[in-house]
Amino acid sequence: MLKGIFAPVPTPFVDEAIAYDKLEYNLARWGATGLSGIVVLGSNGEQPYVDEDEKVQLWKFVSRHFPDDKVVIAGTGAQSTRAAVRLTKKAADAGAQAALILTPHYFKANMNAEALERFYTDVADESPIPVLLYNMPGNTGLNLTPPLVKKLSEHPNIKGIKDSGGNIVQISQFLRDAPEDFVVFAGSASFLMPALVMGAHGGILATANVAPDLCVRIYELVNQGQYEEARSIQLKIIKLNFLVTAKYGVAGLKAALDMIGYFGGLPRRPTLPIGDEEKAEILAALEELGLV
Amino acid sequence: MLKGIFAPVPTPFVDEAIAYDKLEYNLARWGATGLSGIVVLGSNGEQPYVDEDEKVQLWKFVSRHFPDDKVVIAGTGAQSTRAAVRLTKKAADAGAQAALILTPHYFKANMNAEALERFYTDVADESPIPVLLYNMPGNTGLNLTPPLVKKLSEHPNIKGIKDSGGNIVQISQFLRDAPEDFVVFAGSASFLMPALVMGAHGGILATANVAPDLCVRIYELVNQGQYEEARSIQLKIIKLNFLVTAKYGVAGLKAALDMIGYFGGLPRRPTLPIGDEEKAEILAALEELGLV
Amino acid sequence: MLKGIFAPVPTPFVDEAIAYDKLEYNLARWGATGLSGIVVLGSNGEQPYVDEDEKVQLWKFVSRHFPDDKVVIAGTGAQSTRAAVRLTKKAADAGAQAALILTPHYFKANMNAEALERFYTDVADESPIPVLLYNMPGNTGLNLTPPLVKKLSEHPNIKGIKDSGGNIVQISQFLRDAPEDFVVFAGSASFLMPALVMGAHGGILATANVAPDLCVRIYELVNQGQYEEARSIQLKIIKLNFLVTAKYGVAGLKAALDMIGYFGGLPRRPTLPIGDEEKAEILAALEELGLV
Amino acid sequence: MLKGIFAPVPTPFVDEAIAYDKLEYNLARWGATGLSGIVVLGSNGEQPYVDEDEKVQLWKFVSRHFPDDKVVIAGTGAQSTRAAVRLTKKAADAGAQAALILTPHYFKANMNAEALERFYTDVADESPIPVLLYNMPGNTGLNLTPPLVKKLSEHPNIKGIKDSGGNIVQISQFLRDAPEDFVVFAGSASFLMPALVMGAHGGILATANVAPDLCVRIYELVNQGQYEEARSIQLKIIKLNFLVTAKYGVAGLKAALDMIGYFGGLPRRPTLPIGDEEKAEILAALEELGLV
Repeated sequence: MLKGIFAPVPTPFVDEAIAYDKLEYNLARWGATGLSGIVVLGSNGEQPYVDEDEKVQLWKFVSRHFPDDKVVIAGTGAQSTRAAVRLTKKAADAGAQAALILTPHYFKANMNAEALERFYTDVADESPIPVLLYNMPGNTGLNLTPPLVKKLSEHPNIKGIKDSGGNIVQISQFLRDAPEDFVVFAGSASFLMPALVMGAHGGILATANVAPDLCVRIYELVNQGQYEEARSIQLKIIKLNFLVTAKYGVAGLKAALDMIGYFGGLPRRPTLPIGDEEKAEILAALEELGLV
Repeated sequence: MLKGIFAPVPTPFVDEAIAYDKLEYNLARWGATGLSGIVVLGSNGEQPYVDEDEKVQLWKFVSRHFPDDKVVIAGTGAQSTRAAVRLTKKAADAGAQAALILTPHYFKANMNAEALERFYTDVADESPIPVLLYNMPGNTGLNLTPPLVKKLSEHPNIKGIKDSGGNIVQISQFLRDAPEDFVVFAGSASFLMPALVMGAHGGILATANVAPDLCVRIYELVNQGQYEEARSIQLKIIKLNFLVTAKYGVAGLKAALDMIGYFGGLPRRPTLPIGDEEKAEILAALEELGLV
Repeated sequence: MLKGIFAPVPTPFVDEAIAYDKLEYNLARWGATGLSGIVVLGSNGEQPYVDEDEKVQLWKFVSRHFPDDKVVIAGTGAQSTRAAVRLTKKAADAGAQAALILTPHYFKANMNAEALERFYTDVADESPIPVLLYNMPGNTGLNLTPPLVKKLSEHPNIKGIKDSGGNIVQISQFLRDAPEDFVVFAGSASFLMPALVMGAHGGILATANVAPDLCVRIYELVNQGQYEEARSIQLKIIKLNFLVTAKYGVAGLKAALDMIGYFGGLPRRPTLPIGDEEKAEILAALEELGLV
Repeated sequence: MLKGIFAPVPTPFVDEAIAYDKLEYNLARWGATGLSGIVVLGSNGEQPYVDEDEKVQLWKFVSRHFPDDKVVIAGTGAQSTRAAVRLTKKAADAGAQAALILTPHYFKANMNAEALERFYTDVADESPIPVLLYNMPGNTGLNLTPPLVKKLSEHPNIKGIKDSGGNIVQISQFLRDAPEDFVVFAGSASFLMPALVMGAHGGILATANVAPDLCVRIYELVNQGQYEEARSIQLKIIKLNFLVTAKYGVAGLKAALDMIGYFGGLPRRPTLPIGDEEKAEILAALEELGLV
């Protein structure tokens, strides 16, 4: 169930309110691609900008409107253990099949290996659904280290990790150390192929919202041993990936969705919309890939 | 109103639930010190671990149970503009006299000067009470720069800043550039005196929970030009400050409170309690200062 | 000429003086492996601890005592342009076939893209031998970015880069952007395979001093499309690599050489020797790989 | 001897060769100010760009041409212990009265407290002249911590520290922990007053090259308890300091010297000269301070 390419879908807003009709439209399109599933309320879903009651509504809505043969993963991380447990239970009730749980990080100086081990263990103990670790050093300022991930991978309800740090050595170490059924997902399309080559099980990729089939193609080509062609796509996809993640973030990702006929719209404040010049840059990258 | 020494008070928990009787006891003691006021739900109040409805209850409770001649500042920061505005309005309704607003930081790559200016302007425009900027690079990974603070200080409803970064040059620049009535607070007792000497208006200090009168004494001595004696206390207080902030965080601060007869208790999870060795270290520092 | 696996060889010292007899012995052994060549006075050669006249002697000695069918690259970086040019000319005179030039970094705030472009252009203009860029962010605090490397790769005398940063996306970008004959070397065995898979031309690897044939094997297996077996070695080699680079540095590398019958000895001061516990850790890693 | 304000003087170059006539002129002017002395071949002397024989010549020249009642400190740091010892002995022979020794830093991962303690102890043991520690985290990526400085301050030949990190808490800790005769110098004019107020003994300040008497004035005013006036100058000097250090570095400092009638000239390559716009910015800052 947990392998292949997943899109961490953006939350569509109109005047800062969740636009369910737009979401339904997008879901239908993503549902028709080769994606294995989606993450609802990951970073690209603007998780920290969405209230708890909205989160539950979103998970329910998506569970009802996304094809049954695809997986719905809920982003249920929170700073406190109690909130993370509560959200994860609500997500399970709402129909999510797994929970992607961000490292708590506000008090980073105190979030040592012992505290993080306790956090993830507590949440996994109480979660009705499988838990995936979510390592996102760029946003959290914390890194889940190989020894910690190794230890956590032995928990019966911790089933994998999404790594957005992109340190390929660390990803290799996760793969070297964890049990066979512990899945490791690349957290960005920019290092999808190298991660797969080292044994990763797939990717949870912002770019998979915009270029689902190209991402799936890399996955398939690597699995078939067609490295030359995989590399060619991999090298080409880096630029678009950079624009819709590191450089312009969710605002860029949403603009790209608008350009390819999905609904993108604007992020919630304080994230600023991007301007015309930035949009032209994204459009050019989409064109290079034949996506518009 | 906004000058002198403030304590960002911890939120007392028993079995992870807010213990209002303990809080009432603590408030009575802080109320009898030379503190100018308190911050309710700053970092030391474990703000990210407290739910929105709990926050409102807390502000209401404190407004009723803290002396009228002292100031209650509410920590109302949030990642989204809408949540920060909503919390600030609720805090004002609940009786808070000012709002201390943390930099939104999850999407740090997108939180450039323009986005942060827009955020603080939007919140200050809608806030019924004066707004204080809260610069906390250690936890947020972002810094409010002198040019941005200068610009924001011109907003009629932005009245000051708490700086926990501790860069004394930057604090000097805030003081050099801002209007006279814009207050600059040291965010840690470890650099209280140098900040005051450069013109700061006071401090919002974790250590002021445990050693309110020593902190107030530094403030008064500097104002009276008695630098020699101020320096002597300042140099002595650094060690305790380090233990209840950078080194052991809120868990250390709460342990220290227990040692001096306030209620401290445990932080909410995932913050771990400290052990006996750490407690002995804190006790020694309290003894050196004559606080136990 | 510039492809395959290279060892950046340590400089052997006895009582802090260069021990040429030990070096000659080591060179004979490395010369009998599958290595394509060596780097003399890279970081692992303790380049910043070796005086200019010693450097010239070393390059001369190695040129005379290393097999002619293998390549000798000299590490000729320096903080000033004039010193880098001078050293590079001396290395060429001494018989080195290429120069590996570290980013000047002491005044890091001023070493922007423009300054670095000028530096490398000036040195390459005057160098009698091909120049390789040496990107080593861990030691220099500076990174050669893809746009800068792209620009520099167009210089007729700049022939490649050793990247020790290990950011696989950046390595991919170097490969995507540079002319075909511009070589990209992995700077650490820990990410050799992923770099090769993305198109890298080889590696300049501390670990290749100790495990030359395992490193060469990964290189060959990837070239033959035997990814499964390559991955198996790659995953196993990470631990040893970590011990002789990031964790214990040159002191660890030299201790490992002693364990496998080469001469290692001690680094020059202030680098401290490692202790018995650290040595046992390295020995265990060597045993796991069948190297002792 | 070691107190008050020192200027770390730039090394004047004409066509990249040391211009002794220009240096003589500058020395005469600095000699006529209230400076306590100068540092020859600190960072602002472009120490890493100057060859060893040039260094010795420079120290000799300055010792002959600078007033006897002022102190000449030589910057003698090096990456290896042996080079630092050798340079320090040569500087003493050449007439320098103290040595300012930068933290060795190339192999930063190995330069732990133990290695640095050993390094400074070894050098101080062999130095014929008093040793000053030089903490410059911005350039070295390493920090001399309070516990290490405390330990080193007990060495009979280690007499003080120049701290360019500017962490005022750490400076306070140095002053709290060290013996009375261990001197602590502010390493930048931007935090001169706060450091002095906490007990520092003076400053070694790039800005003291350009504004020696303003820096001396701050020092005297603080010593006389005239804090109000000291603060007024302190706040004003931050901008100029920023331009000739952090923002434009040695190139900016040299341009500023040219503007006030000293000889500045250009830095050695690869440091780039600054342009007209940058010069106008510096000129404006000099004008604000009445220096042109």
